[in-house]
Amino acid sequence: MQFSSRLLEQAVDEFGRLPGVGKKTALRLVLYLLKQPDADVSRFTGSINLLKENIRYCKNCFNISDQEVCEICVSPKRDHETICVVEDTRDVMAIENTNQYQGVYHVLGGLISPMDGVGPSDLKIEALIDRLRSGNISEIILALSATMEGDTTIFYLSRKLKEFDVQVSTIARGIAFGGELEYVDELTLGRSIATRVPLSEK
Amino acid sequence: MQFSSRLLEQAVDEFGRLPGVGKKTALRLVLYLLKQPDADVSRFTGSINLLKENIRYCKNCFNISDQEVCEICVSPKRDHETICVVEDTRDVMAIENTNQYQGVYHVLGGLISPMDGVGPSDLKIEALIDRLRSGNISEIILALSATMEGDTTIFYLSRKLKEFDVQVSTIARGIAFGGELEYVDELTLGRSIATRVPLSEK
Repeated sequence: MQFSSRLLEQAVDEFGRLPGVGKKTALRLVLYLLKQPDADVSRFTGSINLLKENIRYCKNCFNISDQEVCEICVSPKRDHETICVVEDTRDVMAIENTNQYQGVYHVLGGLISPMDGVGPSDLKIEALIDRLRSGNISEIILALSATMEGDTTIFYLSRKLKEFDVQVSTIARGIAFGGELEYVDELTLGRSIATRVPLSEK
Repeated sequence: MQFSSRLLEQAVDEFGRLPGVGKKTALRLVLYLLKQPDADVSRFTGSINLLKENIRYCKNCFNISDQEVCEICVSPKRDHETICVVEDTRDVMAIENTNQYQGVYHVLGGLISPMDGVGPSDLKIEALIDRLRSGNISEIILALSATMEGDTTIFYLSRKLKEFDVQVSTIARGIAFGGELEYVDELTLGRSIATRVPLSEK
């Protein structure tokens, strides 16, 4: 791509660094911003700078929060004996959207991934152990992605958590609702047959 | 979407305003930026602010440029008697990439679109007329998108340009190279039959 302006090229380069944004999309976004009023553009860049400078994480569960302790962690309505361990704040939002979970969370901030140089010490695992030591925790739900990194992290955590008198579970894996059997990959289908659930107790 | 932080929500809202960026993508991009070093994020926002504040348009062809007159307009190697009229700077880049065009450009800055409230006076049409009046122009190539807005603009321009002793042409429309006939839409196929080109002169 040949740019007629170095400033334009720099902005497109920066946008192109974002995940899933190629050069052409970056150019489209930058030209869109160029057409917007000055106030809109400074509000755009300002909101990012503001977030980056003032971002805080709940000191309890490490979810993104504007307060020192997040709303979920201070809520008396939540079940503080159950901790759902997730990768990042998006998973918290996804689970909250289901309205099916009343416990609290623990945000690891990533998954163990030797390929990307992410080890257990880069994640909030020690903080989770501390919560187990200090609190009255009865169950840990590992709600991690069904990927190699997710499985590695589940394996590591399950060994770490063995010494505690706590129920450890993972979220169920199987075919999704609305999923047609013929399009499900073999691994998922095989596992959902192996972990089949009886329709009624005999 | 329920956000655990108002700052996060604001940044996601701002990203979500970009064309083609939905809420989920916006959240992914914002969380990605959050994980980057401070310096990277301020370089990202800085490059946009810098571009927005210092952007200049060539006073001749209105292409984005760092100088008062762009490199193409000052180049003695270009054919300054041929002007290619395009919608925006992306089209200049696309045409430059072909290495097929040696003339100069005129960037309209948009297309006539009554639906979006864009009239002829919002575009650099008067400036194009001025160039015709003052310069030694022999041909105007209208390289505009094959959309309703493009056709409307071509129609408007062709009438405006009638009073000048200048050859006005539009870029050819037809089936694309590598395009399979059965997948071409009827309009394009019909037009490319109507405007068929003889293989050899009889």
